[in-house]
Parts: sequence; C-alpha cells; structure tokens
Amino acid sequence: MELHGKNIIAGETSGAGTRTFSAVNPATGAELAPAFHEATDAEVNRAVEFAAAAWGDYRHRAPEQIAAFLETCGAEIMALGDELIQRAHAETALPETRLLAERVRTVNQFNLFAQLVREGSWVDARIEHGMPGRKPGPKPDLRRMLQPLGPIAVFGASNFPFAYSVAGGDTASALAAGNPVLAKAHPAHPGACELAMRALHAAVRKCGLPAGLISMLHGNSNAVGLALVRHPLVKAVGFTGSVQGGLALCDAAAKRAEPIPVYAEMGSTNPIFVLPGALAARSTEIAQGLAQSVTLGVGQFCTNPGLVFGVAGPQFQQFCAQVGDLVKRVAPGTMLTAAMCARYRQGCEEFRGIPGVQLAAAASGAEPGQAAAALFSTDADTFLQTPALHEELFGPSTLLIACPTPAALCATAGRLRGQLTATVHGTPEDLRENAGLLDVLLQKAGRLICNGFPTGVEVCAAMQHGGPYPATSHAHFTSVGTAAVLRFARPVCYQDFPQELLPPALRDRNERGIWRLVDGQLTK
Amino acid sequence: MELHGKNIIAGETSGAGTRTFSAVNPATGAELAPAFHEATDAEVNRAVEFAAAAWGDYRHRAPEQIAAFLETCGAEIMALGDELIQRAHAETALPETRLLAERVRTVNQFNLFAQLVREGSWVDARIEHGMPGRKPGPKPDLRRMLQPLGPIAVFGASNFPFAYSVAGGDTASALAAGNPVLAKAHPAHPGACELAMRALHAAVRKCGLPAGLISMLHGNSNAVGLALVRHPLVKAVGFTGSVQGGLALCDAAAKRAEPIPVYAEMGSTNPIFVLPGALAARSTEIAQGLAQSVTLGVGQFCTNPGLVFGVAGPQFQQFCAQVGDLVKRVAPGTMLTAAMCARYRQGCEEFRGIPGVQLAAAASGAEPGQAAAALFSTDADTFLQTPALHEELFGPSTLLIACPTPAALCATAGRLRGQLTATVHGTPEDLRENAGLLDVLLQKAGRLICNGFPTGVEVCAAMQHGGPYPATSHAHFTSVGTAAVLRFARPVCYQDFPQELLPPALRDRNERGIWRLVDGQLTK
Repeated sequence: MELHGKNIIAGETSGAGTRTFSAVNPATGAELAPAFHEATDAEVNRAVEFAAAAWGDYRHRAPEQIAAFLETCGAEIMALGDELIQRAHAETALPETRLLAERVRTVNQFNLFAQLVREGSWVDARIEHGMPGRKPGPKPDLRRMLQPLGPIAVFGASNFPFAYSVAGGDTASALAAGNPVLAKAHPAHPGACELAMRALHAAVRKCGLPAGLISMLHGNSNAVGLALVRHPLVKAVGFTGSVQGGLALCDAAAKRAEPIPVYAEMGSTNPIFVLPGALAARSTEIAQGLAQSVTLGVGQFCTNPGLVFGVAGPQFQQFCAQVGDLVKRVAPGTMLTAAMCARYRQGCEEFRGIPGVQLAAAASGAEPGQAAAALFSTDADTFLQTPALHEELFGPSTLLIACPTPAALCATAGRLRGQLTATVHGTPEDLRENAGLLDVLLQKAGRLICNGFPTGVEVCAAMQHGGPYPATSHAHFTSVGTAAVLRFARPVCYQDFPQELLPPALRDRNERGIWRLVDGQLTK
Repeated sequence: MELHGKNIIAGETSGAGTRTFSAVNPATGAELAPAFHEATDAEVNRAVEFAAAAWGDYRHRAPEQIAAFLETCGAEIMALGDELIQRAHAETALPETRLLAERVRTVNQFNLFAQLVREGSWVDARIEHGMPGRKPGPKPDLRRMLQPLGPIAVFGASNFPFAYSVAGGDTASALAAGNPVLAKAHPAHPGACELAMRALHAAVRKCGLPAGLISMLHGNSNAVGLALVRHPLVKAVGFTGSVQGGLALCDAAAKRAEPIPVYAEMGSTNPIFVLPGALAARSTEIAQGLAQSVTLGVGQFCTNPGLVFGVAGPQFQQFCAQVGDLVKRVAPGTMLTAAMCARYRQGCEEFRGIPGVQLAAAASGAEPGQAAAALFSTDADTFLQTPALHEELFGPSTLLIACPTPAALCATAGRLRGQLTATVHGTPEDLRENAGLLDVLLQKAGRLICNGFPTGVEVCAAMQHGGPYPATSHAHFTSVGTAAVLRFARPVCYQDFPQELLPPALRDRNERGIWRLVDGQLTK
C-alpha cells in the first residue's frame, strides 16, 4: 500500500495545504517518503463538521453494531500485515518484536471495548420509579444513564505508535462511548498513522457506518491541534504527551466560549521506595528489576521509574553500585526522535551540573541519536531543594536518592508531585513499619505497586492510569483500561418519559440484560 | 443560642480580623445582629491545616462510623429547632413553610448519603486476580477503588440556606466520600450558616471525630473564597452560584501550581418547548403549570424556566395570554437580597429595551426589595440575534419565543447554550414528529423532562443536576443526588498488594458485602 501523505477526511484524502513535512528514520536520520500535508484550518473545519454530522447517525447505533465495528477495527489493523510493522519501525526505531506485541495490545484494546459495549452495563443505568401519590409531593419517574459527548479530538503519543496513537486507547474508548473521533496524526510517525487510519476506514465501510465518523489530520506544528481543540463542535480531548503540550491544550480548551474537558496524561517520575528489609533480603533481585524497568524500550515509557528512594547507609550504597553495574552494561538505544534524544542528553548534562548530584554510572558507546542509560545519585536535601530533579527526564535514566532515616523517606514522599504510579519494595515488616509512607503515596499516585515495577500497564477493568497533577489533568479518569470510556460520556436524566422515547437501556423491560440500579437495588 | 459571628475553626471560634459585616433582613432592609468577622488569610490557613491533619484520621474511619456521623449531622440540624428556621427566615425572607421543607430535605440528604456509605458499593471496587503463569508475560494482581481527595472547599448557594449551604449537599457528599470540609459561609445568611456549623460540630464531638474535620469561614468579599481555592492543601471545590462567581473560582484553581477540579453549578435558562398538539389538548393546564414553575419561590431556583418556545400562531398567542393572565395575579415577593432584586429589576428593564421584545404581562404592587413576576415575548430571530436573551435572569420571569415552524423550533434549540434541564410538552404524536428536537435537547442538557416542569429536583440516585457549560463546569458530574459523591473521590489501583495492606473493600473476602467487579463479573 503506497502512502499518500494526505489528511483523511471522512474517508477521502485531502491535501489542500502547501506546508508539508516528512517523517525521519531516527536510526539513520534519513527522511522517509512521502511528504505529509499539514491540514489547513478549512480541512480541520471540514473534518469536524463531518464528524458532527456522522454523530447524528452513530449515536443511535445499537451496541452490537458498535461492538462489531470495534472488532472490525482490530481485524483491519491486523490485515495491514507487515507493512504497518515495517513503517512504524522505520519511523520510531522501536524493535519489531516490541511493535508486534504493541499491535496485539492495540487489537486487544478494540476487542476489550467491544466486549464492554456488548455487555453494556458501563452506561451506569439508574431507574427510580415515580410515586405519584407520595406526600407532600409526587415523586417523578427518573432514569439516568451515560450518553456520548460528540466529536472527540485525540492526540496520540509518540512512544506508542499503535496502542496510544490514531488507533489507540483514546480512539477506541471514544468510539465505544458512541462518539466520532478527530485524530491528530503524530508527526513522528505519520506513515504508521496513515496506515492505521486507512484500516479504521476500511472498518467504517465494512460496517456501513458514516465516513465522517473518523478523520485524521496531519500537522507538524501546534496550529492543527489548537484548531481542533478550539472548534466549537469538538466536545472533549484525549491527549498523551508532555506537560507542556497538555497544558497548552488545557489552556486553549478553558478559553473557549464553551470550555470542554481535556483528559491529558502528561508526565510522571514514578517514584520507587526501597525499604531496608527488602534491600537486606533481595538487593540483587531489586537491582536487576530496577535496571530493567529503567532501560526497557530505551526508557521511553510514561511509567519509567525516574526516582528511587532508600535509607542512606552502606546497604543502599551497595545497591546503587549494583544498579550502576547493571545499567552500565545496557546497550545504548535509538530514541523515538532526534529531538527527544537531544533533550535526554541535555537533561543528563543538567543533572550532572547540579551540585550534590553525582553521575553514579553510565553506559557508553552511544552513537548520535542514541541514548545511553545513566544512573544518578543524590541526597534527600538536594532533591527537595532542586525543582529540576522533580521533573520527568524522558529516557533510560534514574536518580537514586538517599534519605537519612525512614522518617525522612516518608517526609520526602510528602513533597512529591502527583504521579501515575508509586512503588514500594518491602518485607512484611518493612511495610508494617512504614504504613505512613504507603498512606502518603496513596495521596500522590493513581497506581500503587508493591514489590514490583511500574512499567507494564495492564489493559483491564481494574487499571488506573491517571493520577494527581501533573501526572494527568484530571485524576478522576484513566486513559488505560475499560474505565477510560467514562471520559467520553456524561450522565443524562430522563424525567417522566414514555417508555418508547427512553433509550433501550432505561426501559422497564431490560431487553439488553444489563446491570441497573433500580429503586436502590442493583439488578439485571 | 446566641450567635457569636465568628469563624469556626476546628470547633473553636475565631475572629482575628478587623473586617466585619452584617446580615440584612431583605424584607425590612434592617441589619441583623451580630457582626460577622471576615476570616483573615491566617485563619483560612489554620482551618485548612486542621482539615488536612483531621483527614489523616477521618479517611481511615470505617464506613459505619462515617454513616453514623452523617446521620448525627442531620439529627443535630433538627435539634437546632425553630431558631434555625427563624434566623434563616429573617436573613432570606423565604417563607417558614418552605424553610421547614428545606430542612427536611437537608436531613434526608445526610441520611441518603449515610445509606450510600453504609451500603458501600459506591466505591466501584474492581478486582482482577493475577495470572503469574500467563504467556507472554504474567498478569499482576490489580484492584481499584475510589479514594477520598483531601480537604474540600464548599461554597453554598444563597437560594438554599440549608440544603445547598454549609450543611448542604456538597458538604454531605464530600464528607461521605471521606474528605474534610472547609465551608465558606454565605454572606447573605451567615447566621443560619453559624447555626448549621454549630450543629455539625456537635455531631463531630458526639462521634469522636477530629475537630478539624469541618471548619467555616466568613467573608463578604471574594478574598476568603479565593484564599481557600488557592490553598495548596485544598484538593477540590464545590460551588453553587453565578457563572461569574464560578468562573472566577475555576480560573483561580487552574492557575494553582497544582490545578484542582472545581465543580461549579452556575446557571441555566431551562428551556421549555411546547408542541402544537399539547397546546391544543391542554393549553390551560400547561399555562398554569408554567406560571407556577416560573414564580415558585419568587423564581429563585436554578431550574426556573426562563425560556419557553412554541410555534407562532393564534394558539401560541392565546397561550401567551393565558400565562400572562396567571403571572399578573401572582403577588410580588421579597427576593433573597436587595442586590439580587435590583439585578432582577434591571434585567427586566433591559429586556424591555431590546427591540423585538415585548413585556406581555407583569404583576404589579411590588414594594422596594420585592420582585414582580414578568412575562416577556419575542420571536425566534430576535432571540437568536440577542446574546442577552440567552443569559439567565434570576427571578420570577420568563420569555416566550414564537418560532415560525416546528423545524425552526428544532433549529433554535440547536443554538441554545448548555443547560441543567430541558423540557418538552407534547402529545405522543407531537413527540414522534419532533424526535429531532428531543435529540438536540439531549445534547444540551443534563436532565430532560417530558410533560412536566423543571423546578423540583428530586434527591436520589437517578438524578442528574449538571449539564454542559455554562450550566456547570464539568457535565460529567452532578451536585444533587447520591452520584454527587463521585466528585470528591478518585480511583486508585493497588498492584500486587498483600491482603492485609489492601483497603477492606478490595480484600478477597468481601467482608462488607458490597458489589464488586471481580474478573469481569459483578458480584457480591
């Protein structure tokens, strides 16, 4: 399938603008054909208007049709075959094995949301029958369920070219909730985006859905994204990326005549606390797990552990040395983009320049565009006094922080920013003695991990991938797992509606067999 | 019980500031004793720090203790007896019968949230057991539930001195979710606030809870509220009031180093659509219901119907005349404050000055401080071209809008702003023929009402009191009904935690007997 490099608006290609850009192979620095056409304002507007029109049809489709469509999306992604893998590999330098696994995850996500839609209870149906004779006043008949919002703008992540990009979790959950999607293609992997969008459109056609249901717009600057977020017909935004990028969208959304929610997953340093008993019992094992988690995929995960806290002393010192030995031996890897690699290298230089911060170990032999794993160490005071050390350094590095006492460990935890994850390694005794630390971390993070590592985010009903600011813009929501659908639907209450005008999920006869809260009792 | 006029911080009175203000009896214009002390920044800070400290205790309390506490809050409000009613009557001019009913509602709210907490399933517990042997990688054990946020700032409404003020729905739902509360007393009824807070503190003492759990701060300017919203230890805000006030808090919250959610219920014009068949069948009945809904409580409800749409013609003209005849006969009433009454009167004057808008009917005989019911009429074009007509005019007035055709009715609906409610009056035929109108209104409002009126908001699980901007700042949430608790809790996932460190709701043994989603199956 030859790439055309155009925007895809309601199933048609469109390249009205004169600005183009190319993808770059980060492993070679070579530009990849073809040129991609940055969307014009008129193209953005056309895509959104098509989406709004398509919504009038899509939101009335039966859950079974939406479920079948989601499954077809997954099947069509698979049907792209090796071409998708090869193009994504060329654009991202991610290894093929990783891309094959990510493709499975992407397809599984579509299937998981299909299952959620087919089962149907996610709409949180609540029915309270009226009591016309109640004193002093009658009680009306009230029925409430979640309803879709309208066109959703999706901004994918560079580090998941399938699973959190054009055909990723945000798109799948927005479609599952009954919304059209405007996908902003990621400029670092526009070819993979084009292929994915073509697969989604094949699914749209096969399922007889309106072509405007999904559109994709290219852009290498902020203009296209801002035009999307500012469009009056766009009703919510899903974003995965940097704090800076997320805040720019939040700001634009808040300044609209009608502000809309932006669900931004932005950044996290994912602290790990290694307690003394655990260190005494299995220092080597923890060091191995940590080194692996830090350097996995060249450190390009939002759950990469960037901060590791322990109690100062010979044991923690030895642990640092163990981690250092392991990190040194990790082969440097090509990062997703040259700019990202340059930021990582510059960040490492900045860390080295901070008084009180030591470069404890570093891998060597990095070619241009490659990132070498690095281990930094410092003490709690320096950490607390240096805001730069609280910021995410995206890449294969971590900072070990020696706290003078277990109490200082807890106090330092209390000064952390909001996080996607927080991890504790401890023996049962450690954990009992440091209950206060767990209690502090509960206030800081969306996911707490015991004796494990934060990388590896399971896609399931019980996942929470979202935490207090700056990890995300709204800690009540998750961008991974089935609960992600809740970002793109809002409750609507129907008062005294005749049965035939109620949505099927709210009619007396529970024809879909979903769980509903009826007069206070959960029933189906 | 003599009023002291001081702030109540962790159960102690505090009047450190020099700025004072008095409540005013809106019926007489007379100042009411005592003087109330506006909180200083230091007092705000002290209250928040007490709340954060109390949270460390409160969030570990068993659900049964929280439920009993909520019920005790209700009982202590009742125990204030007639004094609360008298003071609120003096401060608000709301009739005693209304205040007695609102007190019942307030107590019922506490009891309803107690029941929710005792039943316990609201925490949305989800358990996915680990699969250590899964290929290619093991699945961790993941468990997710809602957890409280921390200190919540609550800004009550002037028009519900009990049910949406210091001891109202926001406070009850924040406490139910496990959070401490900082209540900003409403300057229009500070005495009723003091009494209510003293009742809540009696409940805190009786239940052996930390005194810092709830505090109340007075302020007649914006300074106290802004200090609360800007305090780093405050984690969310509940607000009921004007669009201007809500947006000021949203803006302050967004500009914090750590932005926090503001759940603001702000304003709504609650459109009613009267379809031709319904008008032919029961014009008199609809006119009576409308006149009553518009003038109920001197029109001081957020669900007051401010816009009524119909198809132009003799029938709608006759309906206007019927409503006008009824509105004219409604006795003028004293509004909650002189400023509010002045705004209403000025708003009416402005409406009259808009070319194309007619004053169709008005009650007469209003004394100073009283509002006279008013009925305005216009056509769809004038409405669409005049932004001022889309804004809420708080008080006993409504605007009848004649649309040339049923299609124009639907098109005009599409131009409405976000609403708390939207209502349709129609025969079964009307509703079938105007399915498009219902579909448009679904996109505009949080609650849809069929052949009824929007005033009267039932407090129950199926209520949705929240809609797209500007009705609220986040349409995913409600401020009335049990789902209001969801504003003040966020999901936390526990990965591979030992049983004894998990919250009881997430342990294998479902000791609380709550509904949980276990490996995809809802079970208890």
